[in-house]
Amino acid sequence: MIKPRTLSGFMELLPAPQQQMERIMSALRSTYSLYGFTPLDTPIIEDAQILLAKGGGETEKQIYRFTKGDSDLALRFDLTVPLAKYVALNYGQLSFPFRRYQIGKVYRGERAQRGRFREFYQADIDIIGDGALDIVNEAEIPSIIYRTFSTLGLKRFQIRVNNRKILNGFYAMQGLADKSQDVMRTVDKLDKIGADKVRELLIEDCGVSTEAADEVLNFISIQGTNTEVLSALEGYKGRNEIFDQGLWELSEVTRYLASFGVPEENFAVDLTIARGLDYYTGTVYETTLLDHPEIGSVCSGGRYDNLAEYYTNKQLPGVGISIGLTRLFYVLGEQGMLNPELNCAPADVLVLPMTEDLAPAIALSTALREAGIRTQLYTEKKKFKAKMSYADKLGIPYAVFLGEDEINSGEVKWKDLASGEQFSAPQTEAIAAIAAGLAAKETGKPIKE
Amino acid sequence: MIKPRTLSGFMELLPAPQQQMERIMSALRSTYSLYGFTPLDTPIIEDAQILLAKGGGETEKQIYRFTKGDSDLALRFDLTVPLAKYVALNYGQLSFPFRRYQIGKVYRGERAQRGRFREFYQADIDIIGDGALDIVNEAEIPSIIYRTFSTLGLKRFQIRVNNRKILNGFYAMQGLADKSQDVMRTVDKLDKIGADKVRELLIEDCGVSTEAADEVLNFISIQGTNTEVLSALEGYKGRNEIFDQGLWELSEVTRYLASFGVPEENFAVDLTIARGLDYYTGTVYETTLLDHPEIGSVCSGGRYDNLAEYYTNKQLPGVGISIGLTRLFYVLGEQGMLNPELNCAPADVLVLPMTEDLAPAIALSTALREAGIRTQLYTEKKKFKAKMSYADKLGIPYAVFLGEDEINSGEVKWKDLASGEQFSAPQTEAIAAIAAGLAAKETGKPIKE
Repeated sequence: MIKPRTLSGFMELLPAPQQQMERIMSALRSTYSLYGFTPLDTPIIEDAQILLAKGGGETEKQIYRFTKGDSDLALRFDLTVPLAKYVALNYGQLSFPFRRYQIGKVYRGERAQRGRFREFYQADIDIIGDGALDIVNEAEIPSIIYRTFSTLGLKRFQIRVNNRKILNGFYAMQGLADKSQDVMRTVDKLDKIGADKVRELLIEDCGVSTEAADEVLNFISIQGTNTEVLSALEGYKGRNEIFDQGLWELSEVTRYLASFGVPEENFAVDLTIARGLDYYTGTVYETTLLDHPEIGSVCSGGRYDNLAEYYTNKQLPGVGISIGLTRLFYVLGEQGMLNPELNCAPADVLVLPMTEDLAPAIALSTALREAGIRTQLYTEKKKFKAKMSYADKLGIPYAVFLGEDEINSGEVKWKDLASGEQFSAPQTEAIAAIAAGLAAKETGKPIKE
Repeated sequence: MIKPRTLSGFMELLPAPQQQMERIMSALRSTYSLYGFTPLDTPIIEDAQILLAKGGGETEKQIYRFTKGDSDLALRFDLTVPLAKYVALNYGQLSFPFRRYQIGKVYRGERAQRGRFREFYQADIDIIGDGALDIVNEAEIPSIIYRTFSTLGLKRFQIRVNNRKILNGFYAMQGLADKSQDVMRTVDKLDKIGADKVRELLIEDCGVSTEAADEVLNFISIQGTNTEVLSALEGYKGRNEIFDQGLWELSEVTRYLASFGVPEENFAVDLTIARGLDYYTGTVYETTLLDHPEIGSVCSGGRYDNLAEYYTNKQLPGVGISIGLTRLFYVLGEQGMLNPELNCAPADVLVLPMTEDLAPAIALSTALREAGIRTQLYTEKKKFKAKMSYADKLGIPYAVFLGEDEINSGEVKWKDLASGEQFSAPQTEAIAAIAAGLAAKETGKPIKE
């Protein structure tokens, strides 16, 4: 006999939390669908050469790579590279802008630690253009994040927006064009290590002059309302084309975001956001939970000019975001933010037949299911108390009893297991009452702040 | 640049067929939920020692197994072994009977051929008892298959049921008890190789006497209505306890199946069904599409006495079935059985703003989404013809136009792209009319025979 275990770094939920996870995924699927994104499902295993076409970096060390026969295989480590492959491969059969969502597992063999996962869900949306993609999409994406998070029940979150062109343009003004990648990566650590340490790293590691380092710190300390930040940026205008283009884009995105109905408190222009990844070329996003800044960004993304450059000559600009769903779910659980009032039972009703002949109980169960009520027929030979304890432990909202008396009178007897109240009514009325009771219990959102 | 490709044996669908697949999965999820099954999600990677605890056989050769650091890992090849591990691991926190469904990808490195997949979805339901599990469950499972397939739109299918105890008991009567596994595996090939070849294999490979081989062939040729088959079996009664137990079980399952409302034409007692797997101990099922017998069973399963014997001393009897979803989907596609009338577009409505200011179009899109209508706002700078061609190619049912005139008059103008009809109405009425039109278009089931 072998001791059963689940690999460390792999989330495997008990039934009740799994229901909570399903509820969140279902909300993501339906919200993404409402915006005209089509679901995709790509293989978890890909040719390693294709997956690692871009090569290098941290990713390569973390990847699950192995051979089978003479194939060099790897597990996908994000959903963006498979999307790039998919779009390049199926270019002729897709219509652009191509809007897809994908919720799927990805794999990174990171050092296992609390709250870090080696297998985790990402929930991505991307809009891919063919040759060009309008700036409006860069405002629509955060409006979808807003809608998604609101649908889930989150209120205290902020979508922080910046534009890489503003940063690149600014660094060019400071004569730091050739160092801009290094500088941005350093600035990206501001939240974690603080301004003094960033200044020190800029000077010592990036070789930035003290004057330029001070300029950089001044620049990224520009704060205030969106209007205030944008007007502070106006002061830098006319010195660099890239900067001016970025400022125009950021102003457009800000303006459209208001049209899209995203409230000012859920959205901030933030010059410290750069995103560590090299391929973002314009607008970039991070989303933080205001009461939990320590967990960092729970939804990040941005605009890129060339999705699939490793697979095709076509210019495919796009914009997208990714939610690290497994980590977000873990954090919400830790913080007690998963709404405990929602039903996590496998069934809404447990039907307890009290007669030898099961036909009436089966017929009632069928009628309940036809009304959309999740119904379990309990047929094990156990004492009444054991059956009720089963329903209680699972948190099943209603038990229905069907004995000789009920069958003869055509009545259904049921009990609300939370309140202890018992009811009796003819079948049609009973089903309607149970459906109404379930609807009344199921009013909250998946997340409760 | 690397030529993009997807590994052979890995299904990767274009957007429209992916929508069809999603529709089927969604129907499976909701049907399984209606019967009180809770969704589970287990890792795709497991410790290889645990996954292969049972060891041996074809499976081991097909498995994707690899090391990462000093871990010996493997990708799951079915959903039953991970369930066994899960139940053994979480025994104390689960309530029994434990009813779970799981729809997930599994991996088998079979030789790639048309219609065979190395990565494929299984959609499983199982009911696990603690020490005991009532026979009624063995009738409920095929009733759920019936409901599931009917919900999908299938009519011409047959759930074939047998009981391993009848077979084991019968073989014991013929003095073939020690050969019964081999004999059953041979008999299981009846559909593929025919009676004569089975007889030959029984005699030559299994070492069965010609008399016993004839008895076996006589026995498995018992055919007719369920009542006829059961009464033919009555003739063997009283000679072997296991047989008698099996006959009682099969009679009970047949009787309850009628109570569960499964029509006689969708269900047959069939003595040739044995299932190749050793762990089934009672009722066994196979489901065939009557017009496509060549594809074999699309949904199989049965009763087992000991789910998790490799991981725990607990006796955990269960019953379950598995749908080979990827293969089923492939076959349905090949046979033209995926209902082409259902909407596979990423959106229900394409909103085309005709003014510089997008605010009215954004507001209308939001209102449409609030009515549950999947809406894409089209903002690319293209000619009108290109926009309409985009909607046509994607099969989006409605286009909505919003120009100065409409904005000033408060009217919405829209077009049914299938019929070419144009309409105009105030916003609230327009949204209601579009919703009604969508509902009218969406009446069919996912599969059309």
